[in-house]
Amino acid sequence: MLMKIAVVGVGAIGGIYGGLLANVGHDVHFLLHSDFDHVQRNGLRIDSVLGDFQLPQVNAYQSAADMPQCDVVIVALKTTANMQLAPILDVLLKPETTLLLLQNGLGAEEFLAQHYPNNSLLSGLCFICCSKIGPGHILHLDQGAIRLGEYNPQQEAGITPKMRDIAELFANTGISIHFTPNLLQARWEKLVWNIPFNGLSVVLQQSTQGLLTDRHCRDLLVELMEEVIAAANHCGFTIQPSYAQVLLHATDKMADYQPSMLLDYQNKRPLELESIYWEPIRTAAERGFDMAKTRVIAQQLAFLDQKNSP
Amino acid sequence: MLMKIAVVGVGAIGGIYGGLLANVGHDVHFLLHSDFDHVQRNGLRIDSVLGDFQLPQVNAYQSAADMPQCDVVIVALKTTANMQLAPILDVLLKPETTLLLLQNGLGAEEFLAQHYPNNSLLSGLCFICCSKIGPGHILHLDQGAIRLGEYNPQQEAGITPKMRDIAELFANTGISIHFTPNLLQARWEKLVWNIPFNGLSVVLQQSTQGLLTDRHCRDLLVELMEEVIAAANHCGFTIQPSYAQVLLHATDKMADYQPSMLLDYQNKRPLELESIYWEPIRTAAERGFDMAKTRVIAQQLAFLDQKNSP
Repeated sequence: MLMKIAVVGVGAIGGIYGGLLANVGHDVHFLLHSDFDHVQRNGLRIDSVLGDFQLPQVNAYQSAADMPQCDVVIVALKTTANMQLAPILDVLLKPETTLLLLQNGLGAEEFLAQHYPNNSLLSGLCFICCSKIGPGHILHLDQGAIRLGEYNPQQEAGITPKMRDIAELFANTGISIHFTPNLLQARWEKLVWNIPFNGLSVVLQQSTQGLLTDRHCRDLLVELMEEVIAAANHCGFTIQPSYAQVLLHATDKMADYQPSMLLDYQNKRPLELESIYWEPIRTAAERGFDMAKTRVIAQQLAFLDQKNSP
Repeated sequence: MLMKIAVVGVGAIGGIYGGLLANVGHDVHFLLHSDFDHVQRNGLRIDSVLGDFQLPQVNAYQSAADMPQCDVVIVALKTTANMQLAPILDVLLKPETTLLLLQNGLGAEEFLAQHYPNNSLLSGLCFICCSKIGPGHILHLDQGAIRLGEYNPQQEAGITPKMRDIAELFANTGISIHFTPNLLQARWEKLVWNIPFNGLSVVLQQSTQGLLTDRHCRDLLVELMEEVIAAANHCGFTIQPSYAQVLLHATDKMADYQPSMLLDYQNKRPLELESIYWEPIRTAAERGFDMAKTRVIAQQLAFLDQKNSP
C-alpha cells in the first residue's frame, strides 16, 4: 500500500522520520518554512547511525494550499509553533486522514482532538538523538525508537488497528515502533526525563554527562524526577518510584548528549515551556499536587527564554 | 576611650567599616592576606557615599602573631574562610575582648561561642552596597547600616551594654547602628533577602533590577522569600508573610545592584553556600520543614561553584 504522507515541519524530527519514510519509497510531501528554497533545489541530506543517505529530489512545499490531501499527516513542528497548525491541517486533512503527532509534553492532543474530532489521532514519543545541522541537513546520532499510542481522552486506547498501520508504514526504515496502550501515561513517563534534563541543561548550560557527574546536580535530577513521578501518580497514572533510577542509569550509559531544549536555546529558538512545563504543572495543580521544584526550573527557564528571544 | 580594634579580613566589609573606624581616630589593626604588600606601602583608599578618604598609613599585618591583643576583634572574612579563624583568634583574644562578627547566614556564632565561651560575641548584619575594586581600594555605593545583636543561644539577648559599646565605637563614622534584641531572628530576616537575590543573581547572571523586572523571575523571588519566612516561623521565629512584599518593594527602589554572591562568582571566589543555604536548610529540616525550592537553588549553586573554582 503506497500511502501519501505529509510531514509538517522539517526540523530534526520531521527531517529524520520523513526522510527515512521517503527513503524506503513512500510518497512523502514536506511542508517547509525557512529551508524551503534549499530543500527544493538540493533535497534532504541525512547523516544517520542507520546509514547515511541523500534524497536529491523531494516534494517540497512552502504552503499547505499547494499540497495534496494525505492519508497520514505527521506533525513535527515544535509545540511552540502549534498555533500555526489549524490553517495547515484544515487544508491537508481528509475525513479518513490519520494524524500522527511527534511532539513532547502535554496539551497538543486535546487541541487537535477538539478541532478534528473525526480524524484518528496518534502520537509518537521519539527517543532519538538528532539535530538539524544545516538547511535540509539532519544529523541522527543515536537511538530512534518511537513509542506509539492512540489518543483517547476517556480510557486506555489499547493497541488499535491504526497503530498497526503506522508501524507498518515504518517497516524497513530501521525505526522500532513500540506500542503503548496508554498514551498519556507514556507522555508522563517521558516527562520524567524531559523535565529535569532539558531544564537543567539550559539553566546550567551543560550536556547530560556534565549534569550527571556533579553530585549536587545529580541529586537535583533525581529529586525532580521523583517529583514528576509523584505528580503523574497523583493524576491517576502509575509510575514506580524506582523509574527515576532506571532513567538515571540509562542516561549514564548514553553518549554525552545536548538535550533538544539546550539546542533550541543555543539557536535562539523559543523553548517548549508550555507543553513540557506549564501544562504538566497546571494538570497536577488541578489535582491538588504542587510541582514546587519543577516550577522553580520553569520560572528560571521562562526568564532565560524571554532574555534569549531574538 | 581609645579602643584597640583588630579587623580580620580586609575585603569590602572589613575595608569599609575598618577604614571608617580608623578615619575617626580609632587604633585599628588590619590583618590582610592577598593585599598585604599593597596596603603596607599605600594604605587604604575608600570611595564612599559618606565622603571619599585615604588612609596613607595603616597598621597592616600579614600574621596574627605580629598583632597586639585587642579590645574588639571584627571578623569580616567571608564565611567560606572561617576554618582559618581559630588560629587567628587564639592569638588576638584577651578574656575581655569583644568579638564582632560581620557575616551573613547561619552557623558562625555557634562555632565561635563553642571555642571562645568567655568572650562576648556580637554580630552585625550589614546592609550595605560595597565592593573591593582593587588592592586596598573599597567602593561604597549605598546604604551602610548595621543591625547589631548579641549572641545568646538560650534566649533573646535584649539590648546589652556591649551592644551600646559597639554603637559608641561607630559614633561619628556616619554608620547607623540599629539594635536587635533577637539576633537569630534578624539573621533569618536577612536570609529572606539573601537566599532569593544572591542565588538567582548567580544562576541567572543578573543584577537586582534584571531579576525584579521579569514577571516569572519576580514570582520566583516572592515564592522563595515566602519559603524562607515559612521556614523561619517553623523554627520559632516570627516574620510576617507580608515581609516578602516589603523587601521586594524596597529592592525595587534601590539602585541596580550586583549581590555579593554574584561578585564572588564573577571573581571566581568560593560562594557562601554553607552559611546562606545549607545551614538554614538543615536547621529547618531538623524542625521538619523542607525548604524545597531553596534546595533547588542551593543545588544549582553548588554545581556552578564547583565548576567555577579556579
